[in-house]
Amino acid sequence: MVVKVSIFGMGLVASHYIVGLYRLKEGSMKPYGVPLAKYDLAVDFLEEEIVSVYDVDTRKVGKSVRDIVTESLKDVIPLPSSLPETEVRKGLLMGSAAGLDKLFPVSGRDQEIEPMEAIEEIANELKKDSIDVVFNLISTEPAEPFRSEEELLKRIKEGKASAAQAYAYATYLASKDTGKQIAFINLIPTPLANDPVMVNLFAETNSLLLGDDGATGATPLTADLLEHLAERNRLIRFIVQFNIGGNTDFLALTIPERNLMKEKTKSSIVEDILGYDAPHYIRPTGYVEAIGDRKFVAMDIEWITFNGLVDELIVNMRINDSPALAGLAVDLARLSKALMERGVKGTCYEVNAFYMKNPGPKNAKNEARIKAYYDMLKYLKELKIIKE
Amino acid sequence: MVVKVSIFGMGLVASHYIVGLYRLKEGSMKPYGVPLAKYDLAVDFLEEEIVSVYDVDTRKVGKSVRDIVTESLKDVIPLPSSLPETEVRKGLLMGSAAGLDKLFPVSGRDQEIEPMEAIEEIANELKKDSIDVVFNLISTEPAEPFRSEEELLKRIKEGKASAAQAYAYATYLASKDTGKQIAFINLIPTPLANDPVMVNLFAETNSLLLGDDGATGATPLTADLLEHLAERNRLIRFIVQFNIGGNTDFLALTIPERNLMKEKTKSSIVEDILGYDAPHYIRPTGYVEAIGDRKFVAMDIEWITFNGLVDELIVNMRINDSPALAGLAVDLARLSKALMERGVKGTCYEVNAFYMKNPGPKNAKNEARIKAYYDMLKYLKELKIIKE
Amino acid sequence: MVVKVSIFGMGLVASHYIVGLYRLKEGSMKPYGVPLAKYDLAVDFLEEEIVSVYDVDTRKVGKSVRDIVTESLKDVIPLPSSLPETEVRKGLLMGSAAGLDKLFPVSGRDQEIEPMEAIEEIANELKKDSIDVVFNLISTEPAEPFRSEEELLKRIKEGKASAAQAYAYATYLASKDTGKQIAFINLIPTPLANDPVMVNLFAETNSLLLGDDGATGATPLTADLLEHLAERNRLIRFIVQFNIGGNTDFLALTIPERNLMKEKTKSSIVEDILGYDAPHYIRPTGYVEAIGDRKFVAMDIEWITFNGLVDELIVNMRINDSPALAGLAVDLARLSKALMERGVKGTCYEVNAFYMKNPGPKNAKNEARIKAYYDMLKYLKELKIIKE
Amino acid sequence: MVVKVSIFGMGLVASHYIVGLYRLKEGSMKPYGVPLAKYDLAVDFLEEEIVSVYDVDTRKVGKSVRDIVTESLKDVIPLPSSLPETEVRKGLLMGSAAGLDKLFPVSGRDQEIEPMEAIEEIANELKKDSIDVVFNLISTEPAEPFRSEEELLKRIKEGKASAAQAYAYATYLASKDTGKQIAFINLIPTPLANDPVMVNLFAETNSLLLGDDGATGATPLTADLLEHLAERNRLIRFIVQFNIGGNTDFLALTIPERNLMKEKTKSSIVEDILGYDAPHYIRPTGYVEAIGDRKFVAMDIEWITFNGLVDELIVNMRINDSPALAGLAVDLARLSKALMERGVKGTCYEVNAFYMKNPGPKNAKNEARIKAYYDMLKYLKELKIIKE
Ligand SMILES: NC(=O)c1ccc[n+]([C@@H]2O[C@H](COP(=O)([O-])OP(=O)(O)OC[C@H]3O[C@@H](n4cnc5c(N)ncnc54)[C@H](O)[C@@H]3O)[C@@H](O)[C@H]2O)c1
Ligand SMILES: NC(=O)c1ccc[n+]([C@@H]2O[C@H](COP(=O)([O-])OP(=O)(O)OC[C@H]3O[C@@H](n4cnc5c(N)ncnc54)[C@H](O)[C@@H]3O)[C@@H](O)[C@H]2O)c1
Ligand SMILES: NC(=O)c1ccc[n+]([C@@H]2O[C@H](COP(=O)([O-])OP(=O)(O)OC[C@H]3O[C@@H](n4cnc5c(N)ncnc54)[C@H](O)[C@@H]3O)[C@@H](O)[C@H]2O)c1
Ligand SMILES: NC(=O)c1ccc[n+]([C@@H]2O[C@H](COP(=O)([O-])OP(=O)(O)OC[C@H]3O[C@@H](n4cnc5c(N)ncnc54)[C@H](O)[C@@H]3O)[C@@H](O)[C@H]2O)c1
Ligand SMILES: [Mg+2]
Ligand SMILES: [Mg+2]
Ligand SMILES: [Mg+2]
Ligand SMILES: [Mg+2]
Repeated sequence: MVVKVSIFGMGLVASHYIVGLYRLKEGSMKPYGVPLAKYDLAVDFLEEEIVSVYDVDTRKVGKSVRDIVTESLKDVIPLPSSLPETEVRKGLLMGSAAGLDKLFPVSGRDQEIEPMEAIEEIANELKKDSIDVVFNLISTEPAEPFRSEEELLKRIKEGKASAAQAYAYATYLASKDTGKQIAFINLIPTPLANDPVMVNLFAETNSLLLGDDGATGATPLTADLLEHLAERNRLIRFIVQFNIGGNTDFLALTIPERNLMKEKTKSSIVEDILGYDAPHYIRPTGYVEAIGDRKFVAMDIEWITFNGLVDELIVNMRINDSPALAGLAVDLARLSKALMERGVKGTCYEVNAFYMKNPGPKNAKNEARIKAYYDMLKYLKELKIIKE
Repeated sequence: MVVKVSIFGMGLVASHYIVGLYRLKEGSMKPYGVPLAKYDLAVDFLEEEIVSVYDVDTRKVGKSVRDIVTESLKDVIPLPSSLPETEVRKGLLMGSAAGLDKLFPVSGRDQEIEPMEAIEEIANELKKDSIDVVFNLISTEPAEPFRSEEELLKRIKEGKASAAQAYAYATYLASKDTGKQIAFINLIPTPLANDPVMVNLFAETNSLLLGDDGATGATPLTADLLEHLAERNRLIRFIVQFNIGGNTDFLALTIPERNLMKEKTKSSIVEDILGYDAPHYIRPTGYVEAIGDRKFVAMDIEWITFNGLVDELIVNMRINDSPALAGLAVDLARLSKALMERGVKGTCYEVNAFYMKNPGPKNAKNEARIKAYYDMLKYLKELKIIKE
Repeated sequence: MVVKVSIFGMGLVASHYIVGLYRLKEGSMKPYGVPLAKYDLAVDFLEEEIVSVYDVDTRKVGKSVRDIVTESLKDVIPLPSSLPETEVRKGLLMGSAAGLDKLFPVSGRDQEIEPMEAIEEIANELKKDSIDVVFNLISTEPAEPFRSEEELLKRIKEGKASAAQAYAYATYLASKDTGKQIAFINLIPTPLANDPVMVNLFAETNSLLLGDDGATGATPLTADLLEHLAERNRLIRFIVQFNIGGNTDFLALTIPERNLMKEKTKSSIVEDILGYDAPHYIRPTGYVEAIGDRKFVAMDIEWITFNGLVDELIVNMRINDSPALAGLAVDLARLSKALMERGVKGTCYEVNAFYMKNPGPKNAKNEARIKAYYDMLKYLKELKIIKE
Repeated sequence: MVVKVSIFGMGLVASHYIVGLYRLKEGSMKPYGVPLAKYDLAVDFLEEEIVSVYDVDTRKVGKSVRDIVTESLKDVIPLPSSLPETEVRKGLLMGSAAGLDKLFPVSGRDQEIEPMEAIEEIANELKKDSIDVVFNLISTEPAEPFRSEEELLKRIKEGKASAAQAYAYATYLASKDTGKQIAFINLIPTPLANDPVMVNLFAETNSLLLGDDGATGATPLTADLLEHLAERNRLIRFIVQFNIGGNTDFLALTIPERNLMKEKTKSSIVEDILGYDAPHYIRPTGYVEAIGDRKFVAMDIEWITFNGLVDELIVNMRINDSPALAGLAVDLARLSKALMERGVKGTCYEVNAFYMKNPGPKNAKNEARIKAYYDMLKYLKELKIIKE
């Protein structure tokens, strides 16, 4: 059973996902970093196929995927002998371009035609390509959830929705027209799986909207560390977490509105897990190109232990940022397909809770990943997605 | 419902447990560091009462508990206005004295009378005092499990059993004679809850043997960190963990046979959680008096992530060693009582899995603490020990 | 020989300086943290006396020094039995108030009378009090050096000079009128010892202007670490340094213009010591009140070693911010007095190079502290300020 | 002016030195990690030539240098197109073989012929090859200094001297017979430059004995960190330093007598630099093969700052162990030659103080490296070895 994948945002995460997938296909690599690789799943990741790719960076639009990933990864990891030749198509800018053009030259279809027309064009392409799964991997953007379907339509028509919202809407349209289930996997902070208006649209077409913001790096680890401390009833005095990297994702976060979005999804864990809002400072902190994609994380946590004494935990990490998310993507494409086949629609908390920094639906709790993992395993076994 | 407690080993952990308990009783402190303090438990920790205390350090035997804890903690934490006046009684040396006398002057009843006689003396005292719960908090000792009840009897008679084994046996005798359930909580590495021979004796008297080795410090954290990595299918290249402190527990571990015992209980988590024996170096590393009880831990873990790239995690901690275990003790006394009342006997994996470094029974898996915690909560709720 | 001291900015550093000095006077503390305490100096620190103190925080103005330091430090360190009763006088706001009033209520003499008049008032007080040494310890402020004495006068008259510049000018005036040498020790980032116009004024009155920005915390350590690496001809790939604290100094740095000032003085070391501008990110990173004055620093340095391989150094610190500077102040007051007596005027690179983040005069090199220390020792011995 | 080099101990450091030298010769690498590379030195490192190599590992003896370094480094760094073809000659085992044969099969000339005969054989080879500089890079060995020349002769004849002592003596003999100056550079802990008996022999032949134990890794950094703290008169409460690696040097240090030698040279800095013996734990801590040559270091230092408050510094490093020493070797060969030409004989503290962990002569102080560096620069400039 083939899983046809479309990707919005042909950046470093997309590159790692594509290269990794094709190395797995040719058997030259073990699936480390793919959480469920050790289980026998209803859908094998080898069934995933890259069908279409979209971007707004004018240096990428029109180029082949092969050329883009070769350029960005040839000095970093061994490349597979075959790679998709697909040409990168032009995407949408919508309301979220702000500041992006300071980083690189951009252009979007909505600059030439009406926003709704541009969205329909993309919906038509998703239909024509028989896409099963859409990955949203565009640069972090500022965005607000919709309060109603009317507001959604209004903001989309006026070009004031964000690009991610527009892509999700295009996916909904494609699925509505054809009756084919299509999953939209939102790996960036834009609230989509946390937006009831959006989730309802996907429920309507028996499709799935997973999100928001892939849980890699320091955030899920922090969740487990806080849980570890909370389970011993230690009182957190403060937690600080710094993050610095040199990839374009960090560069984009130097634009203040974009940074804000990350801070939101990263900080929600504190209160959700501890039950109180311990003093904290958790946010992407800076950009130094020479650090590259192997970001540096520093964390300091102080707490009160038994008898009122103070303990301290300092964590430092050097982690490859983009491969971490790419490894999750490998699971998420096949999981979405398997879930939709079993009638799961709207969004799926059990999966989001493990894979996402800000798991939808709205107001759903951000819990320890280790707990979320075992709950998910149970859920997937009951649905027979994991075979025992 | 009063929980009458006897303690073997009047060291720093015992001191923190006693001081903390009396501060909680007088209401001058919040129960931070007591894992289940936020739940409504069948037995309140305020019911715990220190009835008798044993040691072999001649400087402590005959002194009042109040004087000992005052001396060791008066410059560290506020002391409660009331503290037990009980005199420390002389314990047993048995086969585990080796090397201890280089650290401080020791003497045991088994130096004056036959081992079995001495054990029976202690059993009689436990009976007379109507003890419900015995804590084993003596210095780490070298010890081997028994292979049969005969071997047990033989080694005990010849004085070749370890002191911890002798105390556990004395507890069994007390309970057997009176029919009263008595829990023995083994917080040191000696394999007791991991020794089927011992566990059977306790099952026979409807009593409980919990253990082994209280899970504080770096080990349970390492368990959760390894689980976190394993759930993402990352391949651990190596893990190293250093530990250095300045309390007498670390001093005792400079005696090689004693260090070995710790290494065993600390290293078992690697294979149990990862499913393979990743290269590791995990052990108490040294003693520097000036560090005191706030030990320093350093950990380095390297793994392979998606696309074969290498990530690294470094953890440094400064943690108050003894209060951490004292906080667990507060829970364990009341839990034991509640469990025995509900007919749980022998040992109890669900509780050991969270509270112990090397959870009994023998061959039971060492699993992630976060998983063990949720499994334990479910178990305690089913038994109505945690009221909802 | 008494050293009469006036302090501008009655904050945490001033509090620690005063408390420490009086504890030293009463003999209840060893002079740890005072660099030259182990040498026999021409002027003993016990000669330092607090004569006047200025602030603009309306909650402090009019209060006694004793009450202010008692309030801020009574739970932190033992207080000496005697403390100065002096009342805090109202200072100047000038051009540097921007944003400060969001943090606390402020008021300055220059709100009531003309700037120049207010400055003269302060100059008169310095004269009347026979001040020898002025410490500038006000909140970090945005400020630009003067290009000429005319510009200085113009900006001062129009109230556009910064408060630190105004205080330095007042000190100059006091000294000019009386012929008495007065040292101005600038412990904040405002370029004063780096401003040739200012330095010339002090040279004119045979007085001394030391600065800028006291070298405590991570910056001088970074200087020595970079020197250590440079001496082995390692190529620095990048250096990042984060800093977070919870004192009002960090709070003030959340105001962007103020943060910028710190970044400047902190980053200059990289190129000065390495000889090339290695990629870096060095700046105060945030404010979390619960961290208090014991700030958290994280640093990551990567370099290329022999045969092109990559090494990494990670540094984490928890350091008491304000006492560190207070310890330097103890030396600087007596050194200034001794230097002026020996005819040193204008500024003094040899001393600045060790004690200051951005040592004046302008364009003077920021060098490794260990080198600066030995060069300073030699200099002070030649001047017979350190007796051998 | 060619510098003819002979190496004893064809291990990882020797491999990195040789590969690096030939990459420098072919111009395919920058001399990072070679301390004095940025200066114009009297002798260029391109003049260094590998003439002979000795080992006792039977798997290496008889093999070509090219094959050995290719095998050990081909997956680690790019190899130069040309490498020495010299065959590794059999060395001496002497009294220092203890335990080595548990690690690999060994054999030495002194197993076949009398010790003194074997030494003379090697001396003759050094003469025949016109060697200028001998590097001692054999595995760390237990060894005691000689108390007199008689004792030296006695222990050598009885085969009870260590291998390093025997090699140094062979070098002395070669130089004595021919009148040619030959430098012996001892990069391991055996006290040679710290042994007055040995140093006298070299002085007698106008030759140079540099040592002991190359200063790489955490030790010289610790020296500079302690100096940094001492210069601020902070009181060190304790310092701990752990070291773990996976190269055969770390493997050899798991043999207790060998570990002891390292502990000695590593700990001497504490008292030398601080002036008091702060509580410390500094030693190679363990061996985990998977860590390879990029060792992990963890350090924790606590001190008392102004007003009696406690600060803490934690350092973690991942450093390539062997290239670090190889980079120093590049300098040391040419420096020795230049020094001997200028009449420096016996040993040379100015050079040892920077390059060695335990700088000779005996009782010479271990000082901060940054200080030692500037003192050495001055010294080398006066001798016109560094041209200005
Ligand atoms: N571990 C991780 O890397 C991680 C974790 C969580 C979330 N994320 C998120 O994933 C996203 C992708 O990360 P990345 O490292 O690949 O970033 P990247 O900067 O390398 O790639 C982003 C790509 O999106 C393109 N883009 C921007 N706006 C677009 C639009 N409107 N339409 C189509 N394409 C657009 C950019 O041109 C760029 O090619 C980011 O939003 C990031 O925050 C990454
Ligand atoms: N976080 C922790 O502190 C922690 C965690 C897990 C396990 N433990 C274990 O708990 C035990 C107690 O730790 P501590 O810090 O209180 O140590 P400690 O050294 O302060 O106290 C041990 C006490 O036991 C006494 N003792 C020794 N042998 C005895 C015997 N045969 N009979 C009676 N008393 C005896 C000693 O005299 C001493 O008073 C140690 O074995 C330690 O390994 C501690
Ligand atoms: N280690 C260190 O703490 C360190 C190191 C280098 C520099 N500094 C600098 O020293 C200064 C003082 O640090 P702190 O921790 O005491 O800060 P603080 O915030 O505790 O104290 C600053 C005081 O200055 C007062 N002030 C502000 N503007 C003033 C004005 N115009 N006139 C008179 N008073 C004024 C404030 O009201 C406050 O009382 C800061 O500028 C800081 O950047 C501190
Ligand atoms: N940064 C560093 O790597 C560093 C720093 C200071 C000192 N050192 C010292 O340098 C030495 C070499 O380090 P390495 O990493 O190359 O070690 P290594 O184990 O890779 O090499 C040592 C070599 O010496 C040989 N050897 C042992 N005994 C010998 C003998 N009697 N005669 C001749 N050869 C003998 C061994 O067979 C081996 O080939 C060690 O003693 C180490 O302690 C290394
Ligand atoms: Mg990324
Ligand atoms: Mg303990
Ligand atoms: Mg401050
Ligand atoms: Mg080595």
